[in-house]
Amino acid sequence: MKIAVLGTGTVGQALASRLAELGHEVSVGTRDVTGTMARTAPDAMGNPPYPAWAAAHPGVRLATFADAAAGAELLVNATSGGVSIAALAAARTENLAGKVLIDIANPLDFSRGFPPGLFVKDTDSLGEQIQTAHPELKVIKALNTLTAALMASPAQLAGGQHSVFVCGNDPGAKKTVTGLLESFGHTDVIDLGDISAARGTEMLMPLWLRLMGALNTPMFNFKIVR
Amino acid sequence: MKIAVLGTGTVGQALASRLAELGHEVSVGTRDVTGTMARTAPDAMGNPPYPAWAAAHPGVRLATFADAAAGAELLVNATSGGVSIAALAAARTENLAGKVLIDIANPLDFSRGFPPGLFVKDTDSLGEQIQTAHPELKVIKALNTLTAALMASPAQLAGGQHSVFVCGNDPGAKKTVTGLLESFGHTDVIDLGDISAARGTEMLMPLWLRLMGALNTPMFNFKIVR
Repeated sequence: MKIAVLGTGTVGQALASRLAELGHEVSVGTRDVTGTMARTAPDAMGNPPYPAWAAAHPGVRLATFADAAAGAELLVNATSGGVSIAALAAARTENLAGKVLIDIANPLDFSRGFPPGLFVKDTDSLGEQIQTAHPELKVIKALNTLTAALMASPAQLAGGQHSVFVCGNDPGAKKTVTGLLESFGHTDVIDLGDISAARGTEMLMPLWLRLMGALNTPMFNFKIVR
Repeated sequence: MKIAVLGTGTVGQALASRLAELGHEVSVGTRDVTGTMARTAPDAMGNPPYPAWAAAHPGVRLATFADAAAGAELLVNATSGGVSIAALAAARTENLAGKVLIDIANPLDFSRGFPPGLFVKDTDSLGEQIQTAHPELKVIKALNTLTAALMASPAQLAGGQHSVFVCGNDPGAKKTVTGLLESFGHTDVIDLGDISAARGTEMLMPLWLRLMGALNTPMFNFKIVR
């Protein structure tokens, strides 16, 4: 499939790598192509700058949000939650129409420092805000509940015997995304219902952050035992 | 141990039963003893009224919040989140001083119907509100992330191979509560740190409610795979 991953950070890189590895035609979208390719310093988490990753993945094209979206059949929102709405606006409605968007962003609010709060919660969610802003998209919230490495390659933890969630309003889009997640190695993709279930998965973030601190690693995931 | 369970609902009954079964001296606290013993109708969830449960558990004494707390070494807050602060005020400071409180309540807001929202979240939690209102208590948030039957008897699901969380400011109290949970059959009690971690476990409720709907049962739990 032709897939555009919007966002050049750790999540975008992990997903783009995995999708390319699985044989998809992948482009990565960014606000400013020249600026992204001029980066020389590691990011705030100490990850190498995008050009280093790009050099190791010559098959993945970097493009503007609009160009990446225009050429894609399916989109992945791997931008920071705080800029997701702006990134999708920059991608332009005509490039989004009728397409599936896997929304991985969390509405993290770093305005009070670490740990972050949530800039939307409980009675609304970022997933819903994106769906409302872009009724032409089929938004499926997914993969926002685990670390990037495990989103892309779940089998490296307990052989993939843990759970991820999907929610969204379009059953066909949910089926497409579920299949894609299973192709990554996810063994338990739970359908939570419509996009308002994103409230629940986004509000998991504060517990996730506490667990990362308690366990001293991001390499864990939730399994729903039943 | 002498333990007071505050609250006569499903959670209070499940915990009081299990604690009595394990040999503890258990009292149940209520706002109005006469009113509670006069109940003849099932509750909103279809559970039998308290007197039916009490008849089956003659060793468990029903008392006012204050009387139950006065005679106890350890307290369990199994009241509804919306009345927890009032229940603890009714228990009176002098009956709480220096004692461990296991806070199981969730800050559910049913004012907009079902599913409930949360009346406190993200930058505060019910657990913290209780600790602030009662600095004389050692508040440990625990067991608010799974259904009552599994709180009390986790082994009935996957032999207890799933996770629960504790958080609170007093290490000794956390150790006491962890031991009590392990005596119930919990095999993975994760220490999340101070009481502010209650934000994370209380905000798990919206996902829990969605999962109950998706799985069509409350008999599930989170396991932290790592």
